[in-house]
Amino acid sequence: MDDTRLQLKRYIVNHNFRKIVILTDDTILHLYSDYFDFLPDAKKLIIKVSISESAKKLSVCSQLWETLIAHEIDKEALWVNFGGGSVSDVGGFVAATFKRGIHMVNYPTTLLGMIDAAVGGKNGINIENVKNVVGCYYFPKSIFIDSSLLKTLPYTELLNGFAELLKYGLICDKQLWMELKSISSLKPQSISKDWIQRAIAMKTEIVEKDPYDAHERRILNVGHTIGHAIESFLMHSSLPITHGHAVAIGICYEALFSFIKGKLAKDKLEEIWRVIRKFYEFPDFSSSDVMKIAEFCMQDKKITQGVISIPLLTDIGTAIPSEKMTKQDILYLFDQAKMNFFNL
Amino acid sequence: MDDTRLQLKRYIVNHNFRKIVILTDDTILHLYSDYFDFLPDAKKLIIKVSISESAKKLSVCSQLWETLIAHEIDKEALWVNFGGGSVSDVGGFVAATFKRGIHMVNYPTTLLGMIDAAVGGKNGINIENVKNVVGCYYFPKSIFIDSSLLKTLPYTELLNGFAELLKYGLICDKQLWMELKSISSLKPQSISKDWIQRAIAMKTEIVEKDPYDAHERRILNVGHTIGHAIESFLMHSSLPITHGHAVAIGICYEALFSFIKGKLAKDKLEEIWRVIRKFYEFPDFSSSDVMKIAEFCMQDKKITQGVISIPLLTDIGTAIPSEKMTKQDILYLFDQAKMNFFNL
Repeated sequence: MDDTRLQLKRYIVNHNFRKIVILTDDTILHLYSDYFDFLPDAKKLIIKVSISESAKKLSVCSQLWETLIAHEIDKEALWVNFGGGSVSDVGGFVAATFKRGIHMVNYPTTLLGMIDAAVGGKNGINIENVKNVVGCYYFPKSIFIDSSLLKTLPYTELLNGFAELLKYGLICDKQLWMELKSISSLKPQSISKDWIQRAIAMKTEIVEKDPYDAHERRILNVGHTIGHAIESFLMHSSLPITHGHAVAIGICYEALFSFIKGKLAKDKLEEIWRVIRKFYEFPDFSSSDVMKIAEFCMQDKKITQGVISIPLLTDIGTAIPSEKMTKQDILYLFDQAKMNFFNL
Repeated sequence: MDDTRLQLKRYIVNHNFRKIVILTDDTILHLYSDYFDFLPDAKKLIIKVSISESAKKLSVCSQLWETLIAHEIDKEALWVNFGGGSVSDVGGFVAATFKRGIHMVNYPTTLLGMIDAAVGGKNGINIENVKNVVGCYYFPKSIFIDSSLLKTLPYTELLNGFAELLKYGLICDKQLWMELKSISSLKPQSISKDWIQRAIAMKTEIVEKDPYDAHERRILNVGHTIGHAIESFLMHSSLPITHGHAVAIGICYEALFSFIKGKLAKDKLEEIWRVIRKFYEFPDFSSSDVMKIAEFCMQDKKITQGVISIPLLTDIGTAIPSEKMTKQDILYLFDQAKMNFFNL
């Protein structure tokens, strides 16, 4: 048995849990049907759901609560979210609200989940297509990282999480960036457990410094303002892209903005574009697409009187929490990028 | 306008809320249809639901979340629970989980709500008849007490809350007990706002001393072990009684246990029985009823190896957090009470 499962086994023994409830989805269970064989059948309850972003529904929660009642699950049980972000979003909410909260840990199976599961404690379900509109804050008591699970992750999902790794390198760990950029092609085995743990440690440190997102924590948002607008714009198109893919593109545009503002040197900007374009496809946006993306930016939560406040890279490994950006700036950015960076 | 509504008006102005969402039930809204007329129509959204214990359902929450989405309610809104315990149980859960929590205050309309709304922050809904099985902790940011609302409260509801007042007098405020026992017959106008505020202050102080219910806080449970067993036993009978009514009876039996254990003087015990019996009807339990009640006691959360740990009164105005009680003790108690106290 690998280290991570041994760690979970010890955790269960130390806490003396009477029952282990494992929430997972069809795909994961199919791939890892014997993963939890080390737990006795009488002690475990594996609940399989079809969870995707569109299945993060109240009816799924309702079924889960009913299952917990039927199995007489109480405060002496351990709840394990074994899956990607959708599993921990739904599972987190159900565990947080069953008997006002049962002991919960995350056991992420995606790269994004491994990095993001660290801190935050946010969960959520969708109602009437409004994303995460119902949910709460509930922190996992522990996180178990088995990076060997990445070997079955689809390539797009690998890219989805890899963007977050790139971001951590760029905002505060130059050494990580150097290691990431040296990868020739992205494969599960190229992801080191050390990178994941460094990203988790960085996020933890930044969030602890500024839990209410007032200052330092904002740098975690690098690439997200333009990235999120691109993600939203493409969501209902014929070619939607993942959150991470959009953020990677967002990082490039926002780095260009930093260069235009005189905060980032030209060679660093070019390096960022070159590395990110090596891994990610960039859609070719028409002027009317760019106009729509700029409008999506203007719906950002961090907007005041038509001016968005965004964090910016000032070097590889350094970022500042806040710079002003207008709609005009965004249009100019996309224009400049097309002329100067698509042939790098 | 009365002081309480003025207070709410000032609270709204100070916090600059854009919208006021008021959750209430049919009965309350019928009685107080113009209560919130002082708020401009454009600013308020009154949501009326039929809420009773049996209507604390997920489908009600679902409707409420959809209503909030339809009205584009956001973090700049104030949520007001205007009603009894069922309204704040459901409303508390909905407000806690909408967009991971919106600003919520309680505006209780029942005596029990006024006393209980103070601290605790528990909410909950029922699933498959399991009471409060889904919920979380979410504290109201403020509590508004308008004791004039009690004038329309049914007598059984008045008795329901009055038991909690009696309990606070007995566990830590002899002066309050003296004032309560001097009431000749219970009427809304006999309840003073000062009593409610003293009970709230006592609960706040006790809970702050021991938030995790390890020691001091346990005295809040006086009367509840036997009371809760009686409540459960009668729940599906032809004559169910309210929680408060059952607690009042429980206080008498538990005071008798304290006397038997040599902790409470006989004259104090007799005084407690005499005062409580003046207000509350005592069902005549058969021996088989008593056996069932004792079994309900044995399902208590605070049981270890067949021995329950209960708080006991040691004088009027004083209690100790923990004394052991067995099933045998309970049977003996009911026997003794029948012989010696039903004719007081």
